[in-house]
Amino acid sequence: MSGRLITLEGGEGAGKSTVLEAVRERLASRGLDDVVVTREPGGTAFGEAVRAIVLDPVRKDVCPESELLLMFAARAQLVREVIQPALGAGRWVLSDRFTDASFAYQGGGRGQPLARIEDLERWAALIKPDLTLLLDLPVAEGMARAGARGQADRIELENGDFFERVRAAYRARAAAEPARFRVIDAGQPVDAVREAACAAIDAYVDSVTRDA
Amino acid sequence: MSGRLITLEGGEGAGKSTVLEAVRERLASRGLDDVVVTREPGGTAFGEAVRAIVLDPVRKDVCPESELLLMFAARAQLVREVIQPALGAGRWVLSDRFTDASFAYQGGGRGQPLARIEDLERWAALIKPDLTLLLDLPVAEGMARAGARGQADRIELENGDFFERVRAAYRARAAAEPARFRVIDAGQPVDAVREAACAAIDAYVDSVTRDA
Ligand SMILES: Nc1ncnc2c1ncn2[C@@H]1O[C@H](COP(=O)(O)OP(=O)(O)OP(=O)(O)O)[C@@H](O)[C@H]1O
Ligand SMILES: Nc1ncnc2c1ncn2[C@@H]1O[C@H](COP(=O)(O)OP(=O)(O)OP(=O)(O)O)[C@@H](O)[C@H]1O
Ligand SMILES: [Mg+2]
Ligand SMILES: [Mg+2]
Repeated sequence: MSGRLITLEGGEGAGKSTVLEAVRERLASRGLDDVVVTREPGGTAFGEAVRAIVLDPVRKDVCPESELLLMFAARAQLVREVIQPALGAGRWVLSDRFTDASFAYQGGGRGQPLARIEDLERWAALIKPDLTLLLDLPVAEGMARAGARGQADRIELENGDFFERVRAAYRARAAAEPARFRVIDAGQPVDAVREAACAAIDAYVDSVTRDA
Repeated sequence: MSGRLITLEGGEGAGKSTVLEAVRERLASRGLDDVVVTREPGGTAFGEAVRAIVLDPVRKDVCPESELLLMFAARAQLVREVIQPALGAGRWVLSDRFTDASFAYQGGGRGQPLARIEDLERWAALIKPDLTLLLDLPVAEGMARAGARGQADRIELENGDFFERVRAAYRARAAAEPARFRVIDAGQPVDAVREAACAAIDAYVDSVTRDA
């Protein structure tokens, strides 16, 4: 069976990192025990250095074009250094955020036209995820969860309107690509969110196995 | 009189930084005494942080797409934060390297198709320089000059063939845009190179003054 790219998306504190571990275990229990786990921005030494610039609260004045170009620089490296080689070797890849996050944050949040983000995605010849779990949560709840974690990064310092636009952009993408997205109500108790994510993973692995 | 963007280009050790000071003085002697001087990659706090990543010899494995995206991220910020505001205020800007360097290094040197670099230039809506002085020098001479300076950065660690392609790409650009470029023989003694650069500046200021 060839490799697949599964991504986890959602706003701040939606529970992506929490769910990721459960998803990895579920994949292992389905015989996919050498999944490559990564995250964005980052996932490579180069990408983590770029992440440090992007998230540094000192960089208040980064223009939206530069923020987007940096995100795609980190992403292009991640795809070439980690994701493509893994998929080529038949391994599955699980990423905590991917290109959808640029459409949500730099597109919805910062107001960069979506067509311009698509231009960059095409320019960098990036692959699309096979399956994306969107953890959807009212902004206030996500901020309360993330806030409890302390020290805000540059993006977390944005205001509530910014995150409302991020959430709306994520939901619009999910609505436009229903075959790829599974929207999960992340406002449920942790166990219920994990179970919903794992059920989506089970159904996806079933479908892939059936087609194989 | 409205502002103008003048750029200095050329390979490693060609003498850009050496000539820059003489050019600035010549502009001042022509009444342009509040010229904004900048450099690439860098020129802003954000851009200097990006520069540190791009030039770090540790990052041997950066893919050519990511290198190019980073260069344009730094450049987009420089244009919006420094160059456009200066030009808008009627000031002249003098930059040690600019977009032509991406065509030479990432295009000629790394082999990224020039059309793909033009796509990014258009995407980022970058302005073109009004005048570009290309300091042209045989590769071996430039390397001997630069080498004497010690500690090589990630790009300086490339081999001679790489720099031959960089030089050829620069010359091709100058040949394709003769109205914008002035090619200066940088193999002459320093004083002669400075004088050639200043003569080009004088002629350009004359032409701008005549047209005004
Ligand atoms: N369903 C849930 N109910 C209540 N709290 C939760 C739930 N899911 C996660 N949390 C808690 O919310 C906080 C944020 O969760 P997590 O770090 O998984 O979110 P995230 O989406 O990865 O956030 P970020 O975008 O900042 O990386 C954590 O303290 C976590 O324990
Ligand atoms: N015409 C010249 N003849 C001999 N030596 C020169 C000449 N011009 C500059 N140099 C010397 O060569 C070295 C490199 O010059 P400079 O730093 O100006 O080049 P550069 O183009 O700015 O290099 P880089 O691309 O590394 O920034 C310096 O030591 C300088 O003094
Ligand atoms: Mg997380
Ligand atoms: Mg120099």
